[in-house]
Amino acid sequence: MSRSINLAVIPGDGIGQEVVAEGLKVLSAALPQETKLETKEYDFGARRYHATGQTLTDQDLAELKAHDAILLGAIGDPSVPSGVLERGFLLKLRFAFDHYVNLRPSKLFPGVGTPLAGSPEIDFVVVREGTEGPYTGNGGAIRTGTPHEVATEVSLNTAYGIERVVRDAYTRAQARPRKKLTLVHKNNVLVHAGSLWTRIFEAVGKEFPDVSTDYLHVDATMIFLVTQPERFDVIVTDNLFGDIVTDLAAAVSGGIGVAASGNINPSREFPSMFEPVHGSAPDIAGLSKADPSATVLSVALLLRHLGYDAEADRIDAAVQADLAERAGKPARSTVEIGDALAARVAG
Amino acid sequence: MSRSINLAVIPGDGIGQEVVAEGLKVLSAALPQETKLETKEYDFGARRYHATGQTLTDQDLAELKAHDAILLGAIGDPSVPSGVLERGFLLKLRFAFDHYVNLRPSKLFPGVGTPLAGSPEIDFVVVREGTEGPYTGNGGAIRTGTPHEVATEVSLNTAYGIERVVRDAYTRAQARPRKKLTLVHKNNVLVHAGSLWTRIFEAVGKEFPDVSTDYLHVDATMIFLVTQPERFDVIVTDNLFGDIVTDLAAAVSGGIGVAASGNINPSREFPSMFEPVHGSAPDIAGLSKADPSATVLSVALLLRHLGYDAEADRIDAAVQADLAERAGKPARSTVEIGDALAARVAG
Ligand SMILES: CC(C)[C@H](C(=O)O)[C@@H](O)C(=O)O
Ligand SMILES: CC(C)[C@H](C(=O)O)[C@@H](O)C(=O)O
Repeated sequence: MSRSINLAVIPGDGIGQEVVAEGLKVLSAALPQETKLETKEYDFGARRYHATGQTLTDQDLAELKAHDAILLGAIGDPSVPSGVLERGFLLKLRFAFDHYVNLRPSKLFPGVGTPLAGSPEIDFVVVREGTEGPYTGNGGAIRTGTPHEVATEVSLNTAYGIERVVRDAYTRAQARPRKKLTLVHKNNVLVHAGSLWTRIFEAVGKEFPDVSTDYLHVDATMIFLVTQPERFDVIVTDNLFGDIVTDLAAAVSGGIGVAASGNINPSREFPSMFEPVHGSAPDIAGLSKADPSATVLSVALLLRHLGYDAEADRIDAAVQADLAERAGKPARSTVEIGDALAARVAG
Repeated sequence: MSRSINLAVIPGDGIGQEVVAEGLKVLSAALPQETKLETKEYDFGARRYHATGQTLTDQDLAELKAHDAILLGAIGDPSVPSGVLERGFLLKLRFAFDHYVNLRPSKLFPGVGTPLAGSPEIDFVVVREGTEGPYTGNGGAIRTGTPHEVATEVSLNTAYGIERVVRDAYTRAQARPRKKLTLVHKNNVLVHAGSLWTRIFEAVGKEFPDVSTDYLHVDATMIFLVTQPERFDVIVTDNLFGDIVTDLAAAVSGGIGVAASGNINPSREFPSMFEPVHGSAPDIAGLSKADPSATVLSVALLLRHLGYDAEADRIDAAVQADLAERAGKPARSTVEIGDALAARVAG
């Protein structure tokens, strides 16, 4: 655990500004007095793109790299063509900083609504690969715009890339009470990538004899996530399947209002980035209606990553208690929720 | 509408035998007396694979081609390595017979259980592309079995292939009361394929000015399928996204016990194939526990494809009435449900 935290803060677009302010409030309240928190704000996102045409330059990356971690609000605005900020900023950062573990916990806290009948027990975490698969920008098109156009997308999968994320997932599974790891893929159709994932999953498993394992096709996973979500403990999966699985996981476990995530470089060669799963929600931006809980839970993931486990636990507990008390009460503003969480964490 | 139906029947593995028997019973009961039904049974699946090593030969394809349509129970058994029958039979048939429309309706019938709270209104149909995308078997691996292995999967997308399935989906949307079509893709990341799908979706839409359209990323689709499934009318999507979306759709709209599907070649150059979405369920095979409703609903899709709309309507109504009467009653056997449905359809 470091005696100081040098944090890059990227509020971004829409509600990003509002939720990040509350995240920082709770972070300050949680840190031990002797820990020095230094933050530097970066104005990435739609505003900068419109002003300069830039999304993320080499110079930006060099500056960001000098931090211990990054806290992001949300990037994206309808005024920017679809894909520009996603690829030019979000994915660029994941690849540049080798964020090969995309960590997305799904926990249905008591009192929180779920679209599922009977409020099942949900407490699992998805370890999504973040630097390979169909996300590498490989692919192209010929005869574009003609009736003979052919477009390809190439999923790239390496033993190196899969092994490190699979090992990370086993380690996380081993540290949890149930010690269970599920590989999600589609190895009956995507045979080359699927075979590589399956073989590595089995080989690395030998190093973790106390972790029980199983395999599910991604389509069957959809069914279990809504009929039997309690069966999952840790899921490890590829970049695209992970994108799909984690949105469904967020939806069934209380919605994206409480879904946190980390884009992690476990080797610590690069700073990791923590962000709520929700987007910039331009329709409610500036209205102080956004729930900062997902950002605050992302701050807890950030603290855990930096070794502040006790502080992260206090934040998780504060959010859980706050959520449990909400039922039947009038909705509070973004700031009110942030204040309440900071008070709980400090007290 | 033909005066006779020449049907290839593939009971297949596990519960396939049992459910197909009931499907044929209801089909016979539904057909007008003057329509001659000829059926020929084919023994594809695990048994044949073990006996001969064959899954589907050129000779088999030539024989199947001579029929008006194919009714399939289920293919797959744990004794056969994962992928062998899927690719060697199911996918081979889809590609050989150019089944470019994979039609999967999702309707939550009154009285049927759903994992979703509040039993929302669900009545939509997914038109999944069946002959392209990441399902074409393109891809490979180098340095297999070494720490330097690299495996690829290539998604192939053609203007020709997308346009025909998109047009089919618009036509189906136009024939429904709500006339709404949603394109599901991930065009902010899979830019080459995504751009092609999006451009064709918009261009073909000009021919259907009365159909309203929207676009959703596949990850956001997951959220809406569990929080707002009533927003969907017709969905058109790529082969892999369709695989994932339709299993979730089946799960929320009553489970795979009632999920029907058609692998359709709209040009009628090849026979189309109809099958329940569920698999061979070896754990309950031979116990007369399987619900034949999904197969019976697939028979209705088959009849509609061949122009027997009134007969298809009668079958749909019979299944709906039967499902509505089940609540609180003791479970019936596969045969009892089939008998009840046949009686309703005939009566
Ligand atoms: C915005 C988009 C590029 C991103 C992804 O697909 O990874 C998002 O959906 C996510 O899950 O973080
Ligand atoms: C068995 C498998 C090849 C198949 C698919 O992926 O299409 C199945 O999941 C389906 O949806 O029909």
